[in-house]
Amino acid sequence: MDVIDILIAKRDARELTDEQIDWLIPAYTAGGVADEQMSALAMAILLNGMTRREVARWTDAMIRTGDRMDFAGLDRPTSDKHSTGGVGDKITLPLAPLVAACGAAVPQLSGRGLGHTGGTLDKFESIPGWRAQLSEAEMLAVLREAGAVVCAAGDGLAPADKKLYALRDVTGTVESIPLIASSIMSKKIAEGTGALVLDVKVGSGAFMKDLARARELAETMVSLGTDHGVRTVALLTNMDTPLGLTAGNALEVRESVEVLAGGGPADVVELTLALAREMLANAGITGVDPADRLADGSAMDVWRRMVAAQGGDPDAPLPQAKERQVVTAPASGTLTRLDALQVGVAAWRLGAGRARKEDPVQAGAGVEIHAKPGDAVVAGQPLLTLHTDTPERFAPAQQALEGAWRIDPAGAYAPAPLVLDRVA
Amino acid sequence: MDVIDILIAKRDARELTDEQIDWLIPAYTAGGVADEQMSALAMAILLNGMTRREVARWTDAMIRTGDRMDFAGLDRPTSDKHSTGGVGDKITLPLAPLVAACGAAVPQLSGRGLGHTGGTLDKFESIPGWRAQLSEAEMLAVLREAGAVVCAAGDGLAPADKKLYALRDVTGTVESIPLIASSIMSKKIAEGTGALVLDVKVGSGAFMKDLARARELAETMVSLGTDHGVRTVALLTNMDTPLGLTAGNALEVRESVEVLAGGGPADVVELTLALAREMLANAGITGVDPADRLADGSAMDVWRRMVAAQGGDPDAPLPQAKERQVVTAPASGTLTRLDALQVGVAAWRLGAGRARKEDPVQAGAGVEIHAKPGDAVVAGQPLLTLHTDTPERFAPAQQALEGAWRIDPAGAYAPAPLVLDRVA
Repeated sequence: MDVIDILIAKRDARELTDEQIDWLIPAYTAGGVADEQMSALAMAILLNGMTRREVARWTDAMIRTGDRMDFAGLDRPTSDKHSTGGVGDKITLPLAPLVAACGAAVPQLSGRGLGHTGGTLDKFESIPGWRAQLSEAEMLAVLREAGAVVCAAGDGLAPADKKLYALRDVTGTVESIPLIASSIMSKKIAEGTGALVLDVKVGSGAFMKDLARARELAETMVSLGTDHGVRTVALLTNMDTPLGLTAGNALEVRESVEVLAGGGPADVVELTLALAREMLANAGITGVDPADRLADGSAMDVWRRMVAAQGGDPDAPLPQAKERQVVTAPASGTLTRLDALQVGVAAWRLGAGRARKEDPVQAGAGVEIHAKPGDAVVAGQPLLTLHTDTPERFAPAQQALEGAWRIDPAGAYAPAPLVLDRVA
Repeated sequence: MDVIDILIAKRDARELTDEQIDWLIPAYTAGGVADEQMSALAMAILLNGMTRREVARWTDAMIRTGDRMDFAGLDRPTSDKHSTGGVGDKITLPLAPLVAACGAAVPQLSGRGLGHTGGTLDKFESIPGWRAQLSEAEMLAVLREAGAVVCAAGDGLAPADKKLYALRDVTGTVESIPLIASSIMSKKIAEGTGALVLDVKVGSGAFMKDLARARELAETMVSLGTDHGVRTVALLTNMDTPLGLTAGNALEVRESVEVLAGGGPADVVELTLALAREMLANAGITGVDPADRLADGSAMDVWRRMVAAQGGDPDAPLPQAKERQVVTAPASGTLTRLDALQVGVAAWRLGAGRARKEDPVQAGAGVEIHAKPGDAVVAGQPLLTLHTDTPERFAPAQQALEGAWRIDPAGAYAPAPLVLDRVA
């Protein structure tokens, strides 16, 4: 088998054979195929695509480079969720304990933020004492004790994906549907969940900017999951506007706790409930309304148990940024647009995100949102509050926000639905 | 400046800016842009192309990473030739001394063979004692003494190209017109020749399989040369059939010496004279017919001086392979086809070429051709003789030759012209 033949085949838009893929992925993982060869191939895949058959085989081969977890010993069905990433997307925080409170086990392996999208682990890590790294035994113990666990994926799960993801990140080859789908699904299938709900974000703040591409990604992932015996459903959800009223680590934890306490912004509650219902149906759990579990405090109980089980103190005050700056409305009218990407970049520049994997994040940094599209605003009122420990970051964040909102004096505003479509 | 922005721009088929190119090439040469980033970019360039403006700037930037040579101190005009590579393409060997015998200085920086195409330096190195590595001072001395010099390019000439070429070779990104054109022309412009004739090969044994792509490559290179003050002309020449009656290092030297002695195969003589006339006209030398210089032995005199000046013994017997195997005609009729690529691959497998840059070549290995398209053949007569030191190579060479020729019993044969077009 020759890697150059594989490169030339994909460069010339031909389909790779099973034998080529089965040879390539372990060879790359073991170092027998060089990074520069894999990155050229990733670019060829991005530009020339892969067939469904190729993506399935590629995903299989990635799973086979590592371990597979097994939750068959639990006394209840497992159900997991994955989001393709957005701005203010803290949904995992209220969702995992909520679904556990409804009777499913939620084994959630999460990642860190990179670029303008936040990462679930970064958010949890703003809780004093909480730790993301668990052994497989610890993970199972938390899952048994609390019903839900959120932690970092171990090195043994699809190591090919870990290596390839790091490479794609520095070579402009992230935005490839076959590569995104196989990356996400190889980890989720290896993780061993029985049911999976995908939240595929669409819009300015998402990787997928248009509905057609988002649907293609969703369909690819749903068929990969189904083929591997994971009951998989995808919701396509709007990411033109940030979710909720915060983007930033501790800021989003605070907002998530409000949702678990029965309050919180309407869009966060709506999406949390929509995804919870899908996760429960997919796990075969019926007759329980997750809205009741938010209202009766049982989801909050699970939250406190899962945070404490990983060393976190659910009662400790959350970190706050040292400096704040308020952005006010320049005119009166109806806010008709608040761009998710620009708010995400501003939060990132304030210190909530990282430019390189090894950079630290500021727990308290981010953007607080005082008006959402559809709200009436008055000239001079606060629109946003910027939070950072390092005031020299205000100027670049302000720059990112230029033109991020529109205020219509006439007040015409047509609200967009949050859930755009469902793929099963 | 951010390499990811550059990668994404080219991935999305946008034009790179001058600033991006001027930053990228030295950064890559110095190690500030990683090989995996450059290989992904090379794949994006191969698939999405570059505009003429981008190629010109890219070539400029590559030249500026190294030294430029200067032959202004010579008492006669310089003229050089470059071939894009073919099978049996020994033309540089008789051509350089012939053009020198007509009054031009020929500073020929050459390369080694890779894959199925031979390399001029490998051919010269089959002459006992001859050495390819010369300092710039030695190169000038040989040029002054003999009028022509053929040697390896020093490390100081367009080092960006050296690094990028090695990378393209292992990442399936060789066959890109912008990358081929900038690679060839950056070295030739840095070399400092006043005039340049390009032999752009078209056909099965060439990188360019069709005339349209070959013409695009020729036009790109001619305009790059002209823009840099090098008088540049290109001939598009046929490479469906091997040139001459030999493919292999010492075998081709022997044939070249026959041409210099006034004999040799008609196609090699024809192409040598056509290129010599272009090189002389381009250097402003008129009133001399290169055919006379072959006939009167003066080209041979230059050959002997230039070989001797680089340590070679022009009278030493050339190496011969230890083993031979004859391939006979399976039928009688007219030979209508002898595939250049297949003969080239056979010669390569016999030991005349290398699979990796660091591999040695066998000086005596190769293919001797006893009939060319248009010749009448009789069943059982020798068609080819295979030469190698390692008889286990006969079987893979024979395999490469399967279906390489066609014999038409009716004898209809329409000869193809050797020179297909001229671009100036």
